[in-house]
Amino acid sequence: MDPLDAAMKKCGADAFVHYAGGEDADMRYLSRFVMHDPFVFFKKHREPGTIIVPQMEAERASRESIAAVITRTQAGLPDISKKEKDPWRAAAQMIAGQTGKTLLVSPTLPAALLRALEESTRVVVDEGTIELVRAKKTPEEIRLIQTVQKKTERAMELGISLIRNATVKKGVLYHDGAPLTSELVRTAVHKQLMDDGCRAVETIISCGEDTAFPHIIGSGPLRPHEPIVIDMFPRDETTGYYADMTRTVSKGKPGQKITDMYEAVKEAQQIGISHIKAGVSGAEAHTAVVEYFKSRGYESDTRGFIHNLGHGVGLQVHELPTLGAAGKVLEAGFVVTVEPGLYYPGVGGIRLEDMGVVRTQKFEDFTEFEENLIV
Amino acid sequence: MDPLDAAMKKCGADAFVHYAGGEDADMRYLSRFVMHDPFVFFKKHREPGTIIVPQMEAERASRESIAAVITRTQAGLPDISKKEKDPWRAAAQMIAGQTGKTLLVSPTLPAALLRALEESTRVVVDEGTIELVRAKKTPEEIRLIQTVQKKTERAMELGISLIRNATVKKGVLYHDGAPLTSELVRTAVHKQLMDDGCRAVETIISCGEDTAFPHIIGSGPLRPHEPIVIDMFPRDETTGYYADMTRTVSKGKPGQKITDMYEAVKEAQQIGISHIKAGVSGAEAHTAVVEYFKSRGYESDTRGFIHNLGHGVGLQVHELPTLGAAGKVLEAGFVVTVEPGLYYPGVGGIRLEDMGVVRTQKFEDFTEFEENLIV
Repeated sequence: MDPLDAAMKKCGADAFVHYAGGEDADMRYLSRFVMHDPFVFFKKHREPGTIIVPQMEAERASRESIAAVITRTQAGLPDISKKEKDPWRAAAQMIAGQTGKTLLVSPTLPAALLRALEESTRVVVDEGTIELVRAKKTPEEIRLIQTVQKKTERAMELGISLIRNATVKKGVLYHDGAPLTSELVRTAVHKQLMDDGCRAVETIISCGEDTAFPHIIGSGPLRPHEPIVIDMFPRDETTGYYADMTRTVSKGKPGQKITDMYEAVKEAQQIGISHIKAGVSGAEAHTAVVEYFKSRGYESDTRGFIHNLGHGVGLQVHELPTLGAAGKVLEAGFVVTVEPGLYYPGVGGIRLEDMGVVRTQKFEDFTEFEENLIV
Repeated sequence: MDPLDAAMKKCGADAFVHYAGGEDADMRYLSRFVMHDPFVFFKKHREPGTIIVPQMEAERASRESIAAVITRTQAGLPDISKKEKDPWRAAAQMIAGQTGKTLLVSPTLPAALLRALEESTRVVVDEGTIELVRAKKTPEEIRLIQTVQKKTERAMELGISLIRNATVKKGVLYHDGAPLTSELVRTAVHKQLMDDGCRAVETIISCGEDTAFPHIIGSGPLRPHEPIVIDMFPRDETTGYYADMTRTVSKGKPGQKITDMYEAVKEAQQIGISHIKAGVSGAEAHTAVVEYFKSRGYESDTRGFIHNLGHGVGLQVHELPTLGAAGKVLEAGFVVTVEPGLYYPGVGGIRLEDMGVVRTQKFEDFTEFEENLIV
């Protein structure tokens, strides 16, 4: 049975309702339609889905969406709004008019809309059916993600080649006679991805002590003999699927602490990968890496390995499953990252991130890019 | 009094709570911190705000956020999660532990978190205090928006110059020996905006019959003697503020219907602008334009002028106020677009969009870019 139908049946709901716009991955998955402002998706029990959009989006929606399309006017909103001035209540009345008396709603439905729906219907909040469905990729989705991954590796090659080919002057990398900055590498990488039909934002090009903070994106001139973390997560402009990968490099030999950390992280990644297959929990894979780091003298609390081993990737760059302490059982078809890291303020950070798919007997790594610290 | 304090006082709340990540404008406004995954903001009555972030974001948050920063561990989440396996309930317990017995929550708080909070606290859903506060820009915000607008106009100039300088061969525009496509213009514009520190996505470069559908972004070769709609809404990568503008051009003279529509839209824009000042409602300005179009024989329903006259712009590209049928009273400091358009399937569409600020006695237009149909 369709997972939404099964969830509806369980609670006796007449329909499932979602309300979101912009980057919402559940909405994109359900409707295959992207609109900046929020809109309504509903699906009655055992029927296909429908979206309710403004008149001005109706033609585009009919062309692009896999759901049936009706306009807000067709759903009666103008008449409702004459009597009901509160927009949430008006939307709730419109939704109730199209659906039924008992509704299963998305866990991320806005609180104000939930309260308004509760005035006239029984509302059950879904536990995340669509998020779970999204975690398990079809062969077509896997192909789309691999396509983004290939483009991401080309962009990584460009970024690293700028560092590799830089000259060094007074402790700073130079390119074409000017300091090679984090911003310059980021822009070069983003432009190439744009030419490849991908959108990348906030690609991390951090250097030196900044690398000890995993999500500082980096700024200013890059320096030799220090770790440079390159973490990119581009999205295909057309399909909406992401890839995610990280490499850490150093122009010239860095200090011994960094070299040791790099070797530990590289080994940890292989340990993580070796634990991943269908039936194993994300927690087991994560814990194996924590234990390995411990055996090498690296902690996993406020310093050291301070984040999860990995996460799902799809229409969101972070989605289910979790490869961390709370990680549940992995299933074949889950696309996940494996990205151990070590972070020591005052020293620096190292992260290596591959992405691949969980198979029955193994982790199939999509990432072919080499791992070499010194460039 | 601080607007959130006033809203809390009205309902007897101990604290205000928001939970969001990514592109959420309320969260960015409240915390001036951007994180991909959702996080908690809370503000107790008459106290400054606090955000609760993962350990790996703590250092960056401390550097970047205007709110106080505590980690999830400091807020007790690991201990709570040992007993409570449902992540929404665990988050609710963590939030309740930091705040109080009566909570005012954001209207966009996820339904699942609302339900979990209701298990142990009294929850009042806010009517959108922050959205209203955001509508009224400070002089500093106005300056930031004007900065983005200037960069947007430079990008518009680039886009139009590609069309102006194109050659025409067999009914198609050519540039450097290849067809000038929507995609090529879009990419050129996006790259220049990137160099200017802005991020633009899905810039509309639509041509001919596609222009009759306002949000079709356009694809394929551009053609002469047909309307080309260029609608761009870049965001400053650093500050997060948007600009929004549209011009419609034609390489060579288009048909008479298009020329007539262009003149009507241009006149309608001036009529809209002339109605905008503090104290006037968005509905009045919108209605004046509807009436004008009617006097020229253009309808405003499923064809003709099928969208609102304008909308607020700030940390969201669409935000309050509304310049449409439901538009409330405008206040000095609101930054809005004025963008009448006419759309006729089989004929084409015209849209002209300026952006500026509502002043006590007038609309101060930020947009200096010329309006000429034929290029």
